Amino acid sequence: MEAPYELIYYTGVPGRGEHIRLALEEAGVAYTDTASLPMSKCREVVTTYLTSRTEDEQGNPPYYAPPLFKHGHLIISQTSNILMYLGPKLGLAGSKEDDVYRVNALALTALDGLSTEVHDCHHPIAAELYYEEQKEESLRRSKEWMKTRLPKHLGFWEKVLERGGSKWLLGTEFTYADLVLFQCIDGVQFAFPKAMNQARESGKYNRVFQLWKDVKARPNVAAYLASERRQKYDWGIYRYYPENDVVPE
Amino acid sequence: MEAPYELIYYTGVPGRGEHIRLALEEAGVAYTDTASLPMSKCREVVTTYLTSRTEDEQGNPPYYAPPLFKHGHLIISQTSNILMYLGPKLGLAGSKEDDVYRVNALALTALDGLSTEVHDCHHPIAAELYYEEQKEESLRRSKEWMKTRLPKHLGFWEKVLERGGSKWLLGTEFTYADLVLFQCIDGVQFAFPKAMNQARESGKYNRVFQLWKDVKARPNVAAYLASERRQKYDWGIYRYYPENDVVPE
Repeated sequence: MEAPYELIYYTGVPGRGEHIRLALEEAGVAYTDTASLPMSKCREVVTTYLTSRTEDEQGNPPYYAPPLFKHGHLIISQTSNILMYLGPKLGLAGSKEDDVYRVNALALTALDGLSTEVHDCHHPIAAELYYEEQKEESLRRSKEWMKTRLPKHLGFWEKVLERGGSKWLLGTEFTYADLVLFQCIDGVQFAFPKAMNQARESGKYNRVFQLWKDVKARPNVAAYLASERRQKYDWGIYRYYPENDVVPE
Repeated sequence: MEAPYELIYYTGVPGRGEHIRLALEEAGVAYTDTASLPMSKCREVVTTYLTSRTEDEQGNPPYYAPPLFKHGHLIISQTSNILMYLGPKLGLAGSKEDDVYRVNALALTALDGLSTEVHDCHHPIAAELYYEEQKEESLRRSKEWMKTRLPKHLGFWEKVLERGGSKWLLGTEFTYADLVLFQCIDGVQFAFPKAMNQARESGKYNRVFQLWKDVKARPNVAAYLASERRQKYDWGIYRYYPENDVVPE
């Protein structure tokens, strides 16, 4: 019997675990997800993985933070790393020689620019402080991000799609990088609806917004998004603070 | 004839390219490096890679930022991605099944926590603004980072080494993750000497500082560090600003 795919991540928000979920859902494979547990039980399980020694016998070093992914004896952390492990198994990492590295580069670039950078818009000073303790800096960062980074990122992804000459990032082949970009664009639209509406209406990034629509309409993705397994944005990476919902000046 | 290894990165600081260089130098393989070019020529070459279409025929999508790495027809970006590509070829990614994913997780965790987070200490608001335009926020972030993040990161790496029961992160096998952590610790010591001296003297992170020493003393690394190829820290990720060189309160 093939070992099950096990996602270990906090419940309550899509978060970084969402990128793993979308790949598994698109591929239509079975997996377990600690996010289906009640909040307190979920936190207990995640904490056990982060602190326990029980799995070390298999040669897995400690992990800094979830998402974690367990497959048989292997337990690994880091979103892009888990996707790189799963990608070829799920048929979502291209088919040409070395495509895994092309796809991983695209995924890392999306995660850096449209996930980590966006998270830091509400936590520019310290992840350990509350948003309310860094509101002023957060507003300043959000304004700058909308002015310089958002157009830079959207422009980059538009260029990737234009050069690829097809609807997906790698060209004609759909890969998990498309799922990652979908989720990032989806999250940024939740956090910064005004700037993203303006970007959409500008017509400069039509390919990027079309990719978001096309991924959303894929049958397995659409079924997942309509299910109870898709959690709502709340306190995670993508947060909606009306005061930060600014448009580029 | 085997295609040459070609590193494409800015000259003038070690930067993110340094992680690639250290792996190549440790392995003792030949490579070309655009950092050996005069500043203006180097910038021209890097810009050509970032903007030109000439290489697209090989199916390489555009790249967001250097370091880039060229090997035959393949051109890839993203530091951790390049290391993952090179690691097995250089014998620096472990030897057990799936060790590449264990090593990649360690490398990503070091790069996130001790490179990106540290860069953002001098640029918490926007990479597009000068440091002088965000000095106040930078000082606040640096203070918080020294108080909560630095001990968290050093404590994590101490735990990895303790559980591995050997001097290297994966256990007895030396991997490129050790080189990445070395370079990160080296850079943080340059940027924040007071806090790092205090951390060293506390005796809480002896394994981490020993790893830094042990990597530095490896013959190929030592020869590289003593060579002209090793560039000085300056305007890059790791910067020394006396006003930010604070100790945890």
